[in-house]
Amino acid sequence: MAEKTFPISKERLQEIIRQYPTPFHIYDEKAIRENIRALKHAFRWAPEFREHFAVKATPNPRIIEILKEEGAGTDCSSLAELFLSEAGGVTGEKIMLTSNDTPADEFQKALELGAIINLDDISHIDYLEKNAGMPGCLSFRYNPGNLIEGNDIIGKPTEAKYGLTRDQLFDAYKKAQEKGVKRFGLHTMVISNELRSDAFIYTAKLMFNLAVEIKEKLGIHLEFVNLGGGVGIPYLPEEEPVDLEFVGNGIHEAYDTILGPHGLTDMAIAMESGRAMTGPAGWLVASVLHEKKTYKDYIGLDACMANLMRPAMYGAYHHITVLGKEKDLCDHIYDVTGSLCENNDKFAIDRKLPKIDIGDILVIHDTGAHGHAMGFNYNGKLRSAELLLREDGSVELIRRAETLDDYFATLKYPGGLMK
Amino acid sequence: MAEKTFPISKERLQEIIRQYPTPFHIYDEKAIRENIRALKHAFRWAPEFREHFAVKATPNPRIIEILKEEGAGTDCSSLAELFLSEAGGVTGEKIMLTSNDTPADEFQKALELGAIINLDDISHIDYLEKNAGMPGCLSFRYNPGNLIEGNDIIGKPTEAKYGLTRDQLFDAYKKAQEKGVKRFGLHTMVISNELRSDAFIYTAKLMFNLAVEIKEKLGIHLEFVNLGGGVGIPYLPEEEPVDLEFVGNGIHEAYDTILGPHGLTDMAIAMESGRAMTGPAGWLVASVLHEKKTYKDYIGLDACMANLMRPAMYGAYHHITVLGKEKDLCDHIYDVTGSLCENNDKFAIDRKLPKIDIGDILVIHDTGAHGHAMGFNYNGKLRSAELLLREDGSVELIRRAETLDDYFATLKYPGGLMK
Repeated sequence: MAEKTFPISKERLQEIIRQYPTPFHIYDEKAIRENIRALKHAFRWAPEFREHFAVKATPNPRIIEILKEEGAGTDCSSLAELFLSEAGGVTGEKIMLTSNDTPADEFQKALELGAIINLDDISHIDYLEKNAGMPGCLSFRYNPGNLIEGNDIIGKPTEAKYGLTRDQLFDAYKKAQEKGVKRFGLHTMVISNELRSDAFIYTAKLMFNLAVEIKEKLGIHLEFVNLGGGVGIPYLPEEEPVDLEFVGNGIHEAYDTILGPHGLTDMAIAMESGRAMTGPAGWLVASVLHEKKTYKDYIGLDACMANLMRPAMYGAYHHITVLGKEKDLCDHIYDVTGSLCENNDKFAIDRKLPKIDIGDILVIHDTGAHGHAMGFNYNGKLRSAELLLREDGSVELIRRAETLDDYFATLKYPGGLMK
Repeated sequence: MAEKTFPISKERLQEIIRQYPTPFHIYDEKAIRENIRALKHAFRWAPEFREHFAVKATPNPRIIEILKEEGAGTDCSSLAELFLSEAGGVTGEKIMLTSNDTPADEFQKALELGAIINLDDISHIDYLEKNAGMPGCLSFRYNPGNLIEGNDIIGKPTEAKYGLTRDQLFDAYKKAQEKGVKRFGLHTMVISNELRSDAFIYTAKLMFNLAVEIKEKLGIHLEFVNLGGGVGIPYLPEEEPVDLEFVGNGIHEAYDTILGPHGLTDMAIAMESGRAMTGPAGWLVASVLHEKKTYKDYIGLDACMANLMRPAMYGAYHHITVLGKEKDLCDHIYDVTGSLCENNDKFAIDRKLPKIDIGDILVIHDTGAHGHAMGFNYNGKLRSAELLLREDGSVELIRRAETLDDYFATLKYPGGLMK
């Protein structure tokens, strides 16, 4: 059982709300540091372990900065994320650019920052050379096809748009070698939000065997293997978190067994966890505006799917706590909704909760990753502020709430109707 | 068969692209005017027909202004949309506010603009009175429960968060009467993107019978019945558009038969079409950046799901034309993708298209409604410009493209890391 906790008392939260009105996301610095430390600990046996935090999960420079203090770099998938990484103090080969269908300006900025570039397709070698130049260290994203079954979120590898086939991979290293690249890495990302520990070990074995083959066939001694992210989190209280020590030990064994005999045990292990670093360390805090009883009982919040898309988009479960009623009997059944004109704008459907009153504060759990980041402005809804609960208990604003002026900004052009 | 056309020649589009780089949405003023005129024509028999354009479909004041010139008002679902309506020149009772889980500031702004307020719940009468005051004309949204089966997008009415039950509706009118409201309307919205003409007539009959009952039981002579929107468009080339004349005639007959004997044939008919007005009159124009051949053939565009969410979110079909290759044989099968790190960022899967080359311009059809409006910034992706093709053939920028500065705006707070 994953205990669903919230690090702030009712009284303290009410104080915070007086300064920063709901809705907002709040992240727990201490928990984020603990998460990255646990990941690093699981891979302490590796000659070098690199965590490239997946910026897309929580694209906020302050979060990047905290993770950087713990030794992490960034995994960027766009031009904007490269800038965010830079603002968070992460540059050079601490950045890995893993994008697909990549435009030229993204490659240019990555090269300017000295990032490791991870190519998604063999055709991108020429495109990169022509539009930006070759980087010091080049990596390729491997798509193992039907060797791995994938999962619901990321899809079957054979149906996935990502990566190079096995044959292309060998051709690509060769081609890059011919173009003078001397340092190489290998990457894959085939699972997302995965809780089965074995899946990570399976992927690692596949990748280590491939590294050996690349050594044997091409004489390329890879500097690192990036095993991707995909470490899931227990959104449901009855789920268990991934046992990182088990995963680390399993990968350690595979590392020694597979790479040992080939003198490859100086190879760095890289990962690009996003969700597992920040997901459980974030909460969406919202107030109850309305209660409505028709064919069902509805609780209407001041937050909506603009603030958290996962329930509407994936039917995802997010645990909900009613502040101050944590010990109360969950003897009411509610749909907890936002105000969007989309019937799927519901944070919970038929959820057992204690009796909720107008004005109650609801804490929606596990919103620290792919929460604020996925918000849209549909129906003219605004995205919320992001707050950081510091280790000393103080609260820092790390993103201000969007205003109507922000929303109207692109309508304010010369001669436009919006003033 | 709905013919999938594009109103601009290849040469002219290339000229436009030199001024406004891809991707962008472009809307056809002439087609929009024709769509609203066809709707009005179908209801020309009504003593008064009001079209409240659903702003959420294309939240752009210039579009609102064009529709206003054709006599349309607006259907607003949020504070931002009320401001957009005002900027487009639509105020007073030309606005109908239909929102749910409504916050106080939205009611206040609606009242300030003199809008018709359509309440989603009986409890909102007190909330409205307390937080804003009572409007001159009040309407209620009816949820018919299991009298209507609904459809996939809007869901079963009994599972839908919207509207009042039948019993609540009668109580609500009575309560509002006691509070001194003198003018009333009735609203429902139970279908979305519906192509079956009969569905609209069925809904109208239900609503007219209800209007009679409201007259008989409460002595309230409704000023209008708003039949909602939901007029679908043929996204698939083999689909037929809704026969608006058939719908109009069917509703006319029901109007006379049901309302006639009760002296209610002065009642205005209102609708709140969005999709049917602008959907087929908009196109997303994108350039081909990459071609990739792995387990499938992929075409990578400079647009992504930030520009059009419907295929990724609903698995929706949007027709695609390759500019200049309209007559070519569709003998290639492609996945047409964007660059998001989401495998569902595909505009088309296994789509038969002519051979596509890098640099080709792709026109994605039927993006005029719920297209740009639903875009998010996930992965740090930016939303595009919106252009208007005027009736005189000139092109007007009606929304500038988002920039990185826009994306970073909420990170630029005092003491923040983003400069």
